Amino acid sequence: MNSVSMTLDELRTLARAKLRLVGLAPDHADAVAETMVAGERDGCASHGIYRLLVAANSVAKGVAVPDAVPDITEPAPALVKVDGRGGFAQLPFERGLPLLVEKARRHGIAALAVTNSVHFAALWPEVEAVTAHGLVALAFTPSHAWVAPAGGTKPVFGTNPIAFGWPRPGRDPFVFDFATSAVARGEIELHRRAGKPVPEDWGYDAAGNPTTDAASVLDGAMRTFGGHKGSALAAMVELLAGPLIGDMTSAESLAADGGRMGSPIGGELVIALDPAGFLGAGLAGRFAAAEAMFDSIEGQGARLPSARRYAARATSLRDGVRIPAQLHADILAIGSNG
Amino acid sequence: MNSVSMTLDELRTLARAKLRLVGLAPDHADAVAETMVAGERDGCASHGIYRLLVAANSVAKGVAVPDAVPDITEPAPALVKVDGRGGFAQLPFERGLPLLVEKARRHGIAALAVTNSVHFAALWPEVEAVTAHGLVALAFTPSHAWVAPAGGTKPVFGTNPIAFGWPRPGRDPFVFDFATSAVARGEIELHRRAGKPVPEDWGYDAAGNPTTDAASVLDGAMRTFGGHKGSALAAMVELLAGPLIGDMTSAESLAADGGRMGSPIGGELVIALDPAGFLGAGLAGRFAAAEAMFDSIEGQGARLPSARRYAARATSLRDGVRIPAQLHADILAIGSNG
Repeated sequence: MNSVSMTLDELRTLARAKLRLVGLAPDHADAVAETMVAGERDGCASHGIYRLLVAANSVAKGVAVPDAVPDITEPAPALVKVDGRGGFAQLPFERGLPLLVEKARRHGIAALAVTNSVHFAALWPEVEAVTAHGLVALAFTPSHAWVAPAGGTKPVFGTNPIAFGWPRPGRDPFVFDFATSAVARGEIELHRRAGKPVPEDWGYDAAGNPTTDAASVLDGAMRTFGGHKGSALAAMVELLAGPLIGDMTSAESLAADGGRMGSPIGGELVIALDPAGFLGAGLAGRFAAAEAMFDSIEGQGARLPSARRYAARATSLRDGVRIPAQLHADILAIGSNG
Repeated sequence: MNSVSMTLDELRTLARAKLRLVGLAPDHADAVAETMVAGERDGCASHGIYRLLVAANSVAKGVAVPDAVPDITEPAPALVKVDGRGGFAQLPFERGLPLLVEKARRHGIAALAVTNSVHFAALWPEVEAVTAHGLVALAFTPSHAWVAPAGGTKPVFGTNPIAFGWPRPGRDPFVFDFATSAVARGEIELHRRAGKPVPEDWGYDAAGNPTTDAASVLDGAMRTFGGHKGSALAAMVELLAGPLIGDMTSAESLAADGGRMGSPIGGELVIALDPAGFLGAGLAGRFAAAEAMFDSIEGQGARLPSARRYAARATSLRDGVRIPAQLHADILAIGSNG
């Protein structure tokens, strides 16, 4: 038997228990478990329950403060800031969300900055959480300086994802979440482990030469997607979710890591817009226009960005998920020799 | 003599006079002239004084209302909406800017929607105008449905530019402004005129087949930059600067054009963030971190996005600009046979 079948509730219970066992405070354990369950549920194995090992490691290495108490402030009427005090980012986001929603509804637009937090999860669960309140969301976070700017070969940017969410009444929201690097860093790592070459446009070696050797790219610099445009976006993410909110750039975060190879510590910016703000009574009509646009994409056989995730979700909600037996065993072993 | 040398003041005076002559109200003429002068000054000939012919044509065809009086409302405390009432977008933006700045400073973040306006200019003059007030800016606008989503071959999106600006104390701001299409539509038009083939990844013909024939791409569909990521961003621009602000999608705008081949009519969304909001007294230190990031880009020989424009600007401010003689003659002829 190569995999273990579990319901999402079983998976949640296991994740919560193991996260508490490695020392996470209960509220942190619950918040972190939820994003892992969401990843597994949506078929994103790399952001699923596998991340339990990453999170456990972050705590063991002292990268993440397991019982950090998020500090919430309102530096301006439409701004919320949650200082994560060195803990995982999920709980600070969860704590800041109700204020973000309230402020977006009151002012039309609002922003939430989560700072001083450990990031290892995707951004889509967070923009999706904002859309669940009927709001439009944008989210950004830097990471570690692994990515060269267009025209250069030395790392400056993180993989710097951008996520966006648009609520669709009665349907799963329109959500995308992608790295501004050419590929995810984990993809290069997988090539390295498999001893496979990577395409020449993924990165450079430490001497600044193009290379197809995965390990050399990991030691050198990754490239952005989309040439100078992707590079410009990567710089924007650095600025918006780093210096603008009082947090680190990806270069500063990597320096602060001090070679521990821990998850990036830093900031995240979430902007929320209330469609009722500009639209008022015209909301239904304009949301229908958005639906017409989605139809014109799907009607020609193209996929909306989250279609694959939502299909996996439907299956998981019905049938549960299958966890690779070795991963399941590794998770069960957490804390058993502690 | 193939070009005419002019100071920027002379160019401004000429542009204002000719725009009035074609019927623009004085405040519209001044606002529109300013973006043309800025384009010419920064070496962007395609968005420079050449656009006088485009603007004149828009008025002559009845696409743009030459004396529209922008209508300013404040639908929510942090939102400004300026209905352009069918005129050019420059004046509505100019009228809305002071309120956007005031609201961003008061609330930490604010948004300006310019709706029902004719767009033919770049977005960078507008984000740069926001940064001149010490604010960070994001701007988006749809256009006409010319661009296919990734995975499809039929037009859905406009060229849908995204612009971003970050103020740099004592220096030109960090600004980028790029189309989410693979190239500017004008670039394909230039290839068509020159009888030159276009690269195969620029677009599809009307039957949905890849083609290197420029005219076929113009009749078919352009592609987005950066594959599915660029396509996702193009969809985001549609939603943010169309339905969200009560305006049209690129498909609706093209339909409304009714074959006149006029400039796109529609919306634009500008988001402004006040760095003092999140940073307070920590502003100088974090802005220094942003400068360190810019240094690490330029220090390895890579260029910041607007470097070329700023270099051209310095030259133009010192030496004036040179207008191609034929273009100069065409501009002088405006209104002389009216």
